[in-house]
Amino acid sequence: MLDEYERRDWAYLATVAEPPSAALRTLIADVGVTAAAKAVATRSIPAEHAEVLKLTEARYGVNTAAEDLDAAARVGGRLVTPDDAEWPGWQLLALSKADTAAKGGEPLALWVRGPGQLDQSIDRSIAIVGSRAASGYGEHVTANISNGLVAECWSVVSGGAYGIDGVAHRNVLASGGITVAVLACGIDRDYPAGHSRLLSEIARTGLVVSEYPPGTNAAKHRFLTRNRLVAALSAAVVVVEAGQRSGAANTAAWARKLGTPLGAVPGPVTSATSVGCHRMIADGVAQLVTDSQDVLRLAQPGEGNAGSTTGSREHRTDNLDAIQLRVYDAVPATGTLTIGEISFACGLDLRQVRSALAVLEARGMLRTNGSGWTLARG
Amino acid sequence: MLDEYERRDWAYLATVAEPPSAALRTLIADVGVTAAAKAVATRSIPAEHAEVLKLTEARYGVNTAAEDLDAAARVGGRLVTPDDAEWPGWQLLALSKADTAAKGGEPLALWVRGPGQLDQSIDRSIAIVGSRAASGYGEHVTANISNGLVAECWSVVSGGAYGIDGVAHRNVLASGGITVAVLACGIDRDYPAGHSRLLSEIARTGLVVSEYPPGTNAAKHRFLTRNRLVAALSAAVVVVEAGQRSGAANTAAWARKLGTPLGAVPGPVTSATSVGCHRMIADGVAQLVTDSQDVLRLAQPGEGNAGSTTGSREHRTDNLDAIQLRVYDAVPATGTLTIGEISFACGLDLRQVRSALAVLEARGMLRTNGSGWTLARG
Repeated sequence: MLDEYERRDWAYLATVAEPPSAALRTLIADVGVTAAAKAVATRSIPAEHAEVLKLTEARYGVNTAAEDLDAAARVGGRLVTPDDAEWPGWQLLALSKADTAAKGGEPLALWVRGPGQLDQSIDRSIAIVGSRAASGYGEHVTANISNGLVAECWSVVSGGAYGIDGVAHRNVLASGGITVAVLACGIDRDYPAGHSRLLSEIARTGLVVSEYPPGTNAAKHRFLTRNRLVAALSAAVVVVEAGQRSGAANTAAWARKLGTPLGAVPGPVTSATSVGCHRMIADGVAQLVTDSQDVLRLAQPGEGNAGSTTGSREHRTDNLDAIQLRVYDAVPATGTLTIGEISFACGLDLRQVRSALAVLEARGMLRTNGSGWTLARG
Repeated sequence: MLDEYERRDWAYLATVAEPPSAALRTLIADVGVTAAAKAVATRSIPAEHAEVLKLTEARYGVNTAAEDLDAAARVGGRLVTPDDAEWPGWQLLALSKADTAAKGGEPLALWVRGPGQLDQSIDRSIAIVGSRAASGYGEHVTANISNGLVAECWSVVSGGAYGIDGVAHRNVLASGGITVAVLACGIDRDYPAGHSRLLSEIARTGLVVSEYPPGTNAAKHRFLTRNRLVAALSAAVVVVEAGQRSGAANTAAWARKLGTPLGAVPGPVTSATSVGCHRMIADGVAQLVTDSQDVLRLAQPGEGNAGSTTGSREHRTDNLDAIQLRVYDAVPATGTLTIGEISFACGLDLRQVRSALAVLEARGMLRTNGSGWTLARG
C-alpha cells in the first residue's frame, strides 16, 4: 500500500507531462516514484532520462498533486497507480509493445471515480464503441448487445460520448450491469456536458476512468490517446456503427495494434453510419458480429464454441499463402527435416522458409524439437 | 456445325438420363454422339461404360428428340451442345473438377431460349441470387447492384425465382441490359407460373437456359442441380439476401466448390433475410459487398482496382486450390510446356492438369498457343 507521500508523488508525476509519457514511466521504473518526483521537481534528472527534462519543462514547477487528489476525492475518485493492487497490469502491458509504445505506452497512473476495483471492473469487459450520430438501428443493436453481455456477467467499456457510447452505458446501467467510461478529460469534468448526469450514474455503480488529472479539459488529441485505453482495457472491441470517418475507426485501429479482437456490426448498405463497419469487415480487419454471443465468441476464442453458428470449418491449410503452403507441404509427418532440408525440398530460400515456419508453428500446424521440424498431430 | 441427325442424337441423349449424368458425357466423349445414341438405344453399351446402361434404363426406349426440338423451337428455343460454337466450354469446365463431377459435372447440352449467343451472353456476367421472401431492403439493393452492373456492360444471371432473382432480372431488363435465367424445368415451362411473363420478356433480349428437356417440370433436386450452372456460368456470385435456410446458400456452396468468387450483401442484423449473408461473411466463405463496384472488384481481381476501398489486395495465387497452385507453379514464364510436360512437372494426372489449366486460363493467369502453355504477363 502506498503512503500519502508516495501517492502525492505519483499525482505530481501524472501532471508534469502530457500523457502518454513513456519516458517518464521509464524513469519511475528505474529510480522509484519518490526519487523520480524529486528529480523532476529539482531538474536533477539522470542523463539517460534526459528526454524527461524536455517533457516536463512546461509543468514541473507547479505541483498540484494535493489539489488534484482533493478534487478527485470530492467526486468520489482516487488515483490508481501501478503500485496499487487494483492496477490492471496485464491488460495494459500490451501497450508497452514496441510498436505501440511510441504512440502511447502504458498510462503512468489512472484517475478513477466509482466504487468498483479497477482490475475487477474490467476483468471480463467488452468495449462497445461507435458513431456519435447513431441511427435508431445502431441504438437498437447496441441495446441488444449490451443487455446480452450484462446477462452473461460481462462489463461494458466505452467512451462516454453521445450516440453509441451513451446508449451502451445507459443500457448496462438499466440492466444492473457494470459499465466503465474512459474519458479524454478529468474525471471531475463532465464531457460531453449533456452526459453529466449519465457519468454520475456510471460512477455510482461502475467506474469513470481517465489518465488526465482532474480539471483537464477534453481535447482532440486526448480522444485519440484515450481510445488506446478503451482498446487495452477490454477483451474485445465492438464497433456498432461507424461512418466514413469515425473516431471508432481509431479505437478499432488500436485494437488491431494491441491484438484485442475486433468485431463490427453490419447494417443496411444504404446507411451512412454502417459504411465504416462494412469497410472493416470487407478489409478483414474486423470480424462480423450480430449479437452478444458472437461478441463473446470473439472475446473468448476456443471457449465453449461447440454451439457456434459457423457451419463450415475451413480446411486447416486454406488460410495459408502460397509460400506457407509450399513449406507446409515439405514438412514430413514422421521424422523431422532441418530448415536447410525444407528449403531444398520446397525450393524456397532460408528466409522465406523461416518466416513461414514461424507462422505455421504459431498456428499449431508444425512442431520443432529445436533442430528439426515435423507436422503437428491432430 | 452439327447436322440435323447429330442434333437429334444430342437431344435424345439429353433426355435418356436425369442430369447431371457424367457417365453419359464420358461415353459421348469416347465414341461420339452418333455412336453413343445408337449404343444407348440398342443397349449395346461398351463394357467400360456399363454405368450408362443403368442410368438410361428407364428412359432409353422413348426417343422424344424430334418433339423436344420442336417444342423448344415453338418458344424460340434451341439445343446448344458442346459441338456448337456458342458452347461456354471454359466456364463449364470447372464443373468437371474431381470434387464436383460426382455431384454434377458438366451439363450434356443446354436448352436455350432467346436471341443471344450463349457464350457471349455470359462472357461478362454476374449471378445475383437470394431469398424468395426478399425484403424491401433486399429488393432495393438488388436493383442498385443490377443497374450498376448493366451500366458497366455486364449481364446478370439468376434463377428466375420470386424475390431477389425476379427483382434482378426485372431491373436488368428495365435498364436495357442482358439477363440470363437458368431454370430447373424445361425452357417451355414457366416456373414459377407467376413469372410466365417475366420469362418471356427475358427470352426476348436475353436467354432462358436449362439442361432439362422441354416439358420437364421443376423438382426439388433439379433446383440444386440448376444452382451449379448459375455458379459456373458467372464470373462471380452475389447473395443479396438469404435466410437461415436458403436456396441461395446452395448456389453459394457451388460457387465455393467451383472457385467462383462469392460475395454477400450485409443488412440489418435484425432482419431474418440477412442471416444467411452474415453467416457467409462471418465464416469467411463470402466477401462483404455493398454495391456493383465491390462486385466487379470481386469478379475481376487485380483489374483496375486502383480506387479500391479495400486496403489489402490478395496475391493472385491466393484463391487457387492446391492442385491449381501446383499446375500454375509448373507452367513456365518463358517458352511453353505441353499438357503432358506440365503433368510430368507437377506430378498430377492429365485430367487434373486439364481442369486446372482451364480455370487458370479463365482467370487470365495462363495463356496457350493451342499446344503449349505459358504464364500470362502482368
